[in-house]
Amino acid sequence: MKSPHPASAALCKVAILGFGTVGSSVARILCERTRTGLRLTHVLNRNLERKKNAGWLPAHLQWTEDINDILSSDADIVVEVIGGLEPAGEWIRSALRSGKSVVTANKQLIAHSGLELIDLARKVERHIAFGASVAGGVPVISGLQEGLAGDELFKIYGILNGTCNYILSQVESQGVSFAAALAEAQRLGFAEADPSDDVDGLDARAKLAILATVGLHTRVDPAAIPCRSISPIEAVDFEYAKQLLCTIRQISWAELDGEQLFATVRPALVELSSPLARVEGGRNLVMSTGKYGGETVFGGHGAGGNPTAVAVVSDIVAIARARQDITQGFADTPKSSARVTADFSTRHYLRFKVKDRPGIIGTLADIFSHCGINIDSVLQKPGYLKSSLPFVITLEACKASLVEEALEQIAGLDFLVQPCVHLPILG
Amino acid sequence: MKSPHPASAALCKVAILGFGTVGSSVARILCERTRTGLRLTHVLNRNLERKKNAGWLPAHLQWTEDINDILSSDADIVVEVIGGLEPAGEWIRSALRSGKSVVTANKQLIAHSGLELIDLARKVERHIAFGASVAGGVPVISGLQEGLAGDELFKIYGILNGTCNYILSQVESQGVSFAAALAEAQRLGFAEADPSDDVDGLDARAKLAILATVGLHTRVDPAAIPCRSISPIEAVDFEYAKQLLCTIRQISWAELDGEQLFATVRPALVELSSPLARVEGGRNLVMSTGKYGGETVFGGHGAGGNPTAVAVVSDIVAIARARQDITQGFADTPKSSARVTADFSTRHYLRFKVKDRPGIIGTLADIFSHCGINIDSVLQKPGYLKSSLPFVITLEACKASLVEEALEQIAGLDFLVQPCVHLPILG
Repeated sequence: MKSPHPASAALCKVAILGFGTVGSSVARILCERTRTGLRLTHVLNRNLERKKNAGWLPAHLQWTEDINDILSSDADIVVEVIGGLEPAGEWIRSALRSGKSVVTANKQLIAHSGLELIDLARKVERHIAFGASVAGGVPVISGLQEGLAGDELFKIYGILNGTCNYILSQVESQGVSFAAALAEAQRLGFAEADPSDDVDGLDARAKLAILATVGLHTRVDPAAIPCRSISPIEAVDFEYAKQLLCTIRQISWAELDGEQLFATVRPALVELSSPLARVEGGRNLVMSTGKYGGETVFGGHGAGGNPTAVAVVSDIVAIARARQDITQGFADTPKSSARVTADFSTRHYLRFKVKDRPGIIGTLADIFSHCGINIDSVLQKPGYLKSSLPFVITLEACKASLVEEALEQIAGLDFLVQPCVHLPILG
Repeated sequence: MKSPHPASAALCKVAILGFGTVGSSVARILCERTRTGLRLTHVLNRNLERKKNAGWLPAHLQWTEDINDILSSDADIVVEVIGGLEPAGEWIRSALRSGKSVVTANKQLIAHSGLELIDLARKVERHIAFGASVAGGVPVISGLQEGLAGDELFKIYGILNGTCNYILSQVESQGVSFAAALAEAQRLGFAEADPSDDVDGLDARAKLAILATVGLHTRVDPAAIPCRSISPIEAVDFEYAKQLLCTIRQISWAELDGEQLFATVRPALVELSSPLARVEGGRNLVMSTGKYGGETVFGGHGAGGNPTAVAVVSDIVAIARARQDITQGFADTPKSSARVTADFSTRHYLRFKVKDRPGIIGTLADIFSHCGINIDSVLQKPGYLKSSLPFVITLEACKASLVEEALEQIAGLDFLVQPCVHLPILG
């Protein structure tokens, strides 16, 4: 237990393999966030003339179409975001053997060859990290590896495929057929021309295999996980599900029971009260259950260039910090304090309790108007005594200080039975 | 960028200061989880005769009431779970100066002196970790420090106090007064005899100050965060909130706008569609918003011995791993594969589409009965053609294989217009 704590990271050089949606988002974050001690030095991409003209890219950046240029470079970390099993797998192996650490977003490769690649990284004394391989920007891999390392997890389940979630949401909310919802998803670019990886569960089961390996510490061949397609689901199923206080989602589920792993990807009914029923559009949600800590939830954007790039850059930062200070995140803090205020701009809820008489609303409306505040609605439920009548005024978004000013004037009015209850309305 | 990767951790010795709810849970996890390379060696507690008789504690364990016994011991990591500013603060400083790393669950101490303690740890080349200081078992500190390190967060908000959440839920669901809900919470041990730390927001603001420092990288004095009590909230406010499609929760909110930090702890209306509206009982939920990754959600048990102990042990594991392999969680994996099955036991949803005639339900019921399956309900919505009538049978919890067996027999029946849609019902 000795801990060398260099005060700041040495400059860490990063090469990116693949300059598509995720690769260019990673490059942008590295270029915009200059205080991280990370420097983008190389990009490998085919047809690079078309790509390298983005104005925000630094002049020193070296472009290549040849992996050997990267392998022989001084880059410390190689980011693989080209996808697919090959050449990604061979390039990652070569990078590790060339003394580079690797960050990858490649779920199929990690699901199939993750343990082999980790063994290789360990042998050559380099790191490999793959937080972006599951659920994009949802920090569930680091959550299972770090935040819940103290627990014994036995169940991991959730929504791991945004395309299925979008299609099922559309069948539910629009009452359209599965085919129509799929066609719309394809038109919007949410689904591939060949959607079978998504709708039949193959995409989700690769992610589930990774989560089971990381969180349940069991080796799983993704091909061994039984999948069912969401394609037989019709609008009528949502009507019946609703009667059962449920909705229908593509659920990935892995549960350890001794030496046996229950695991499947399939459409399932989930109770409307479950967080799984509330996952919107392309979002992902992962729930884990542990012997000691009970249920933990991780949610966020499951795909897209920027969220996935956040996961990639977080892994780069973790590798750069690996032999530094685990309190880095806190210790990076500037020594100057922020000016703290509670003067948010929100909508507002004001609940009055009054001795009722004509003209009260008019009096209040005048005060708000003088303060430059717009009333949104007035609510009054029946069934209360006129001598102590509660009613509510909601205000359009404005600063809390403005409302306080109006309430100071209102506080002196003789029809008030008790002080006004003032709450911000969030969302 | 060099990475020494020892194949396994050297044995890491742990001392616990305080053997209350959290301390004894930490001890139990360390004693039950033997494959972690961690060994509980010392416990400091007053009146220790009463405590040390638990049968599951190892015989080698050394008990003391004197902090100097811990400081001069060979413990590598000292866990502080006594709470309060002093003597906890002085003991942590002494432990660091004695060459020990420290794990603490002490939110008031970290909110007030966190940066000073980290500076000290850095100076003496040891670690300090405090993942348990906010939201118990919710891995939000590591999530902000590690999983979202690649993003630029500008907003963190959520439900950080389970007592307030319980009280407000009771006012909402039972229609009781605030005073009655508080008294019930006190009777059940969810609220202290003096509840002001919870209901007035002081507990939550200490946690919010830590989250703002870790996630927004800004130094915040907790005393500078304006708080409002939840005590004026009445049942009528929930009725009006419901009309506005909202509910009311104690919300902690911090948002960075240039050099200014908007921050407050107060009751607020939250939309029923927000995950915040769904947080039950003593659970916590933290949401962060970043420039690149958008919104991320962390949820789980915010308090209690075991969930908090998971956070403590996760920090111990992180320190023990600090100069090892960040892929440890994956690489710990046993080389043997789990047997994978999808044969979960759940409730089941079966949607049939039939050419209607008398006796269909009876025929199906006979088949299920022969297979040993109990029908839970039969649902039939009006308005469909008799020639293609959808209806639903739900089954009580049983193995999927049993249902498949019944469905094989059913598949041959001539009244079916299409194959049965079979979904598990989760929850």
